[in-house]
Amino acid sequence: MLGRKLAAALTGTTELAGRRIARLTLTDLEMPAPSAVSGASATAGAPVAAGASATSSASATSGASAVSGAPAPVLQTLGADIATPGLAAALVESQPHVIFHLAAVVSGEAEADFEKGYRINLEATRSLFEAIRARGPGYRPRVVLASSIAVFGPPLPDTIDDSQRLAPLSSYGTQKAIGEMLLADYSRRGFLDGIALRLPTISIRPGSSNRAMSGFFSSILREPLNGRPAVLPVSDTVRHWFASPRAAAQFLMHAAGIDSARLGSERSLNMPGLSATVADQIAALRRAAGEHAVELIRREPNPAIEAMIESWPRQIDGARAQALGFRAESSFDEIIRTYIEDELGGRLPSGMQRSHDS
Amino acid sequence: MLGRKLAAALTGTTELAGRRIARLTLTDLEMPAPSAVSGASATAGAPVAAGASATSSASATSGASAVSGAPAPVLQTLGADIATPGLAAALVESQPHVIFHLAAVVSGEAEADFEKGYRINLEATRSLFEAIRARGPGYRPRVVLASSIAVFGPPLPDTIDDSQRLAPLSSYGTQKAIGEMLLADYSRRGFLDGIALRLPTISIRPGSSNRAMSGFFSSILREPLNGRPAVLPVSDTVRHWFASPRAAAQFLMHAAGIDSARLGSERSLNMPGLSATVADQIAALRRAAGEHAVELIRREPNPAIEAMIESWPRQIDGARAQALGFRAESSFDEIIRTYIEDELGGRLPSGMQRSHDS
Repeated sequence: MLGRKLAAALTGTTELAGRRIARLTLTDLEMPAPSAVSGASATAGAPVAAGASATSSASATSGASAVSGAPAPVLQTLGADIATPGLAAALVESQPHVIFHLAAVVSGEAEADFEKGYRINLEATRSLFEAIRARGPGYRPRVVLASSIAVFGPPLPDTIDDSQRLAPLSSYGTQKAIGEMLLADYSRRGFLDGIALRLPTISIRPGSSNRAMSGFFSSILREPLNGRPAVLPVSDTVRHWFASPRAAAQFLMHAAGIDSARLGSERSLNMPGLSATVADQIAALRRAAGEHAVELIRREPNPAIEAMIESWPRQIDGARAQALGFRAESSFDEIIRTYIEDELGGRLPSGMQRSHDS
Repeated sequence: MLGRKLAAALTGTTELAGRRIARLTLTDLEMPAPSAVSGASATAGAPVAAGASATSSASATSGASAVSGAPAPVLQTLGADIATPGLAAALVESQPHVIFHLAAVVSGEAEADFEKGYRINLEATRSLFEAIRARGPGYRPRVVLASSIAVFGPPLPDTIDDSQRLAPLSSYGTQKAIGEMLLADYSRRGFLDGIALRLPTISIRPGSSNRAMSGFFSSILREPLNGRPAVLPVSDTVRHWFASPRAAAQFLMHAAGIDSARLGSERSLNMPGLSATVADQIAALRRAAGEHAVELIRREPNPAIEAMIESWPRQIDGARAQALGFRAESSFDEIIRTYIEDELGGRLPSGMQRSHDS
């Protein structure tokens, strides 16, 4: 999902990190042809682009200005399992200047399938870093790694800042924390120039549910906004930390161009976001689509999901990231508007138009 | 070195974790025959036993009492590289109840040889955990992992407690931090029952110097105590965190029998130790062996070593470990006495006998 959003953002621009994009390679388990990914609307419903690497060619080093009338980037797509031996080496052979590494087995699946979680979230990440290192000292790309607030765990203060220790209570969080540590060490040693973004929980995810334990934070809004029922497995008082898919894609794009000298040895950044309760989400849904939308939410408490979610952060101090120019939404009304604009063509489906206090 | 101390402690006892030791397997790159490792004095100068696994057989489940006249444990030694494919599976085939995993490439070498550090400190550790997991749900051994205070990094408070975040500034510290995270996740999932001990810098290491950056903390005492010159690469004011080899071996033995329910989800323990400056070390040397011993120390400042050491902790709050029964020395006089007892047969070499204020 995030890869698809990023791909749309990349194909919708001509520049990344201050340079013209000359070539763009998108890799995922299943990938459509390049012609199907050249814009957000064209890829709606397409398979998830979970890994993307963007090349700014050497000829773009002349400056940051967008070249009017410049040729469109060469767009390549590759359908492959990121853990395939040799794939990482093939992906970095053209020495892309920026690599976004988003490929991941999500929290619920990494808990259910221990081996697959470690294979994709740990081994494939390390294989990518090793493939970059193997190119030799002349190559030091910006690597933007999607990490997660699941690297944190109890005891948690009400607000988490950058001195919070990594104490994951899930295999997913463990694998992401290890990825961050590898990124920091490979960066310190000069093999790559990495930035890890600890993304908030993304809401509202478009498309169908994935196996993330946090999936309901999207479905309780997405499904009613489309006139469909949704299940809420936790209490209305559960507080969590959010950003929209649009904001998350912008975080990734922005990270490509950050001067890493400003990061020091701490290569991981808590992304800004919005702290909200399930009740806040539902109130915003009511304001956007009325009571009949809210009535589509069915409460089915699931203590296992609630326990896992409660071990995750509720609020993050994103001051360091904000000082570096990262920006997120400030209300769920804004997040719902973003969803309606980006996924529903700007208006609710017929039958879901808001009738006041219906 | 630590493996040799642990092997001596294990072969010098009949019990571990409240059970009679039925079989003891010692593994290292090079291993002497079992007859050469059945006591500390017999192994002095022998190759380092960096990995050790101890078995308490099922027949020992009857109780914690030492069986008078019980047969001596079966002692096996195996010389092999811990990273050899299949070795970990072979080592756990007999399903030992306790596994000590000490095998490591030390800080200086892990910095100099990036690939070797990751192969031994990360991959071999994960292979061992995977081999244990592959035995199936009936097998859940106590795994005692030797970790290090090098998992911490700046900004450091004067005293570090258990909420201190992992922020290593060396490849060695990164690899140890990842080992801790793997141990915690494999323990949480029930594949093993792990405890990681963040050992202080060990001083006084016997034998010759290894490639640890912290090696001088031992050599500036060990060499003069033996009438030989030593090089001090840092300032006298550098403060660090220490325990003797004897204390460290006892930490490992004690960890084998701790009830892990008392650890909660936090499987890593900061070991108790002694906070001391280089000046404190030298003052204790003067008290033990006189000024002529101190005069054998030659100052050769090395800014790279000083910078690395300064990024490591100076003092640890070991309260949690102390509550669990771990004990360390309280002065360098005690540490020097321990060295003289364990390594020099109880007295200084002739010529190094103390002559007051000589």
